[in-house]
Amino acid sequence: MSVNYEYTGGAYDEEALLALLDNRQYSVFMQTVEELNPVDVAEFFGRLPEERQAAVFRLLKKDTAAEVFAELESDVQERLIHAMSDREIGVIVDDLFSDDAVTLLGEMPSSVVKRIMKNAKPETRAEINRLLSYPEDSAGSVMTGEFLELRKSMTVTQAVETIRKTGLDKETVYVAYVTDAQRRLEGVVSLKDLLFAAPDAIIEDIMETNITSATTHDDQETVAAAISKYDLLVMPVVDMEGRLVGIVTVDDAMDVMEEEATEDIEKMAAILPTDKPYLKTSVSETVKARVPWLLILMLSATVTGAIITHYEAALGTWVVLTAFMPMIMGTGGNAGGQSSMTIIRSLSLGEVVPGDVLRVLWKELRVSLLCGIVMGLATFVKVFLIDLHADSANLIVAAVVSLTLVVTVVLAKLVGALLPIAVKKVGLDPAVMASPFVTTIVDALSLLLYFKIASLLLGI
Amino acid sequence: MSVNYEYTGGAYDEEALLALLDNRQYSVFMQTVEELNPVDVAEFFGRLPEERQAAVFRLLKKDTAAEVFAELESDVQERLIHAMSDREIGVIVDDLFSDDAVTLLGEMPSSVVKRIMKNAKPETRAEINRLLSYPEDSAGSVMTGEFLELRKSMTVTQAVETIRKTGLDKETVYVAYVTDAQRRLEGVVSLKDLLFAAPDAIIEDIMETNITSATTHDDQETVAAAISKYDLLVMPVVDMEGRLVGIVTVDDAMDVMEEEATEDIEKMAAILPTDKPYLKTSVSETVKARVPWLLILMLSATVTGAIITHYEAALGTWVVLTAFMPMIMGTGGNAGGQSSMTIIRSLSLGEVVPGDVLRVLWKELRVSLLCGIVMGLATFVKVFLIDLHADSANLIVAAVVSLTLVVTVVLAKLVGALLPIAVKKVGLDPAVMASPFVTTIVDALSLLLYFKIASLLLGI
Repeated sequence: MSVNYEYTGGAYDEEALLALLDNRQYSVFMQTVEELNPVDVAEFFGRLPEERQAAVFRLLKKDTAAEVFAELESDVQERLIHAMSDREIGVIVDDLFSDDAVTLLGEMPSSVVKRIMKNAKPETRAEINRLLSYPEDSAGSVMTGEFLELRKSMTVTQAVETIRKTGLDKETVYVAYVTDAQRRLEGVVSLKDLLFAAPDAIIEDIMETNITSATTHDDQETVAAAISKYDLLVMPVVDMEGRLVGIVTVDDAMDVMEEEATEDIEKMAAILPTDKPYLKTSVSETVKARVPWLLILMLSATVTGAIITHYEAALGTWVVLTAFMPMIMGTGGNAGGQSSMTIIRSLSLGEVVPGDVLRVLWKELRVSLLCGIVMGLATFVKVFLIDLHADSANLIVAAVVSLTLVVTVVLAKLVGALLPIAVKKVGLDPAVMASPFVTTIVDALSLLLYFKIASLLLGI
Repeated sequence: MSVNYEYTGGAYDEEALLALLDNRQYSVFMQTVEELNPVDVAEFFGRLPEERQAAVFRLLKKDTAAEVFAELESDVQERLIHAMSDREIGVIVDDLFSDDAVTLLGEMPSSVVKRIMKNAKPETRAEINRLLSYPEDSAGSVMTGEFLELRKSMTVTQAVETIRKTGLDKETVYVAYVTDAQRRLEGVVSLKDLLFAAPDAIIEDIMETNITSATTHDDQETVAAAISKYDLLVMPVVDMEGRLVGIVTVDDAMDVMEEEATEDIEKMAAILPTDKPYLKTSVSETVKARVPWLLILMLSATVTGAIITHYEAALGTWVVLTAFMPMIMGTGGNAGGQSSMTIIRSLSLGEVVPGDVLRVLWKELRVSLLCGIVMGLATFVKVFLIDLHADSANLIVAAVVSLTLVVTVVLAKLVGALLPIAVKKVGLDPAVMASPFVTTIVDALSLLLYFKIASLLLGI
């Protein structure tokens, strides 16, 4: 989808539109729809009864149809394609921006993909295949080929003329790229530059030459981050030979950022990422995404079990200790989760880099000690005065519990903070080192501590 | 910060810049810096030794200085202000975009704020005070007052002239707003519209009148979401009387989205949100943000403890049961966390609304049953064949454990999915209903189940 200047969107009256359809006032319907933002029209289609969608879609003007189609949910798109003739499909796909076409193909079953490609113009097919050839989640896979090219020898007037002639079907007319005969990127000019420059000025003299550009194989997340950092409207993408092959616009960068944040959250929750909205994923897909980590974490909980078994005898005599196990393990998990998730987010925002490990360590050490002491004291008071009869034997138990808690909190926070950095350091995704994983490790550590401290103080 | 067309940013040679400074080649340094993106220059300043920052900053040209200043980390900003004369401060603050000025004031201690306001031009001060009067995180608090206004009676040529005359110090020249004598918003025209329209066409005939605009008190998150949904470059903000008072640009929307995602993640990790980067928050701030939830969750873990105490006798005779408690509670927590965090994210992306509660319930029911059965079977095999001697007594124990696990997973996922929706329904923030909170509830439920099932099958 291109950055939007034509529409503003928002308010539309679903009832009124339906009424127009029911009363067969198709021309009025078409006019009304032309006024609306394609995003809203797409939403309206999503709400139409499935059997009506195709018929109503045929009412749209050619250009509107393509714009609306690009915004439809993939299930509606598939339904419409099934209802379309080969010719209709060809018209739509040739009209789509190449990045939208690629997204569409990515979501359609292979039979539909074949049919779409068969009916696309040869040049469209070539362009789509070119984009499809780039690795998933790369700059090449999210860029679009529709950008403005100028030559450095042009005058401002000629440049503006060129933009008028060639600009209409481009993703944006606000940034144009200056390339040489080999299409190598030489500079960039904004329409603002042109607006404020003298008509006879030469592009070469006003173009910006210190350009950040992405290469086709850069990670889409990196590109989005750069667009956000420099507040760019659009980022040029060059191939290995430095030839300009596409652009990524800020609106696509926003979508990428949203996707990546969702993916991080899913990983933090020990879910394998599925890039479909929750209600659009099938039950089996969801189960497949959730079971693996549950199993892995369950198996690793064996260690915790083993520790308890080892201390079975002690627990037999001091059953009271058992009552505090969940609280200790829970607090450890929460404390560790807090630091791990903070560090994971900071890493993915680039606020923390693996090089900061010592600063992080030093900070978490102080934070965890303070948190630990507060928690320990609170626990001591609670355990001794509320949970148990305040007698001398229980004084020791309370001491054991609260002492364990202090050390657990410190350990948990250090583990939680360091694991993600370590994982990032070796080039893996830190997001998996969040609460669930950290908790499992901390559970074992805290119990081990608990029993060690207990055997020391209670002389088990 | 305005959407960036002037700069492309990226590559700059820190060593070279430092060398220029050390060799006192200040004019060359200034030229080089002029070529760079203010974001990069700000980064360079952040890395300079603190005592050099002020002196080097004085080398910058007036406009560059303001642009760079807006991009500096707040601690650097504060240091520079302390080193500046009242006149210098006045120049900077009058040159800042109003939204950047407001952000700056938000991060400075009150003494500095007083000093800044004292030295700002009266009109700047008025504008800043106007923006400061809007609630935190509202559209009014993130908008900027520098936007282009046109009259509907103008011709395209006149409009372009007006933009040339007034556009240079505006946040964007690509979208202009048509207002009446009372500054009420009547329409919007993009520079693209003007570029492709006939020179003598009247603005009224080409302007877009179906406009979504935010009101000053809308939540910044809503505005950002709309900008992202409609791929807008900029969103107009009107006051209660429908007068155009500001605009929010896509780059600010991106920052808002990033902030909000971070805030959600912090809440999911049971942390009180702090809107500063991790390494910029003091130890005490971090502790204050983390301890409250740790305490609350610890206290609520008392319930779990009470349940165990209640079954102390049983545990005394069947100590083996204790060994599986961490695994059951852990799996329950993880299973619940998976669904709660998925639903929380879907809610904040608007993919799920409270009205979908039945669809969610039905989906989670099937998902959790499948997950539960898989986990239960795996556990049975593991517990019976690996953890214990495969004898008839342990057959029942294995049955108890795996049966508990099945029910726990189902319960955990239902609780995890429904809690956030319920909380959203009553108008609170669902993000707090994530793993830590869900885990605490599920811990208690699963243990209760465990012991109930145990007493049934083992006849405790």
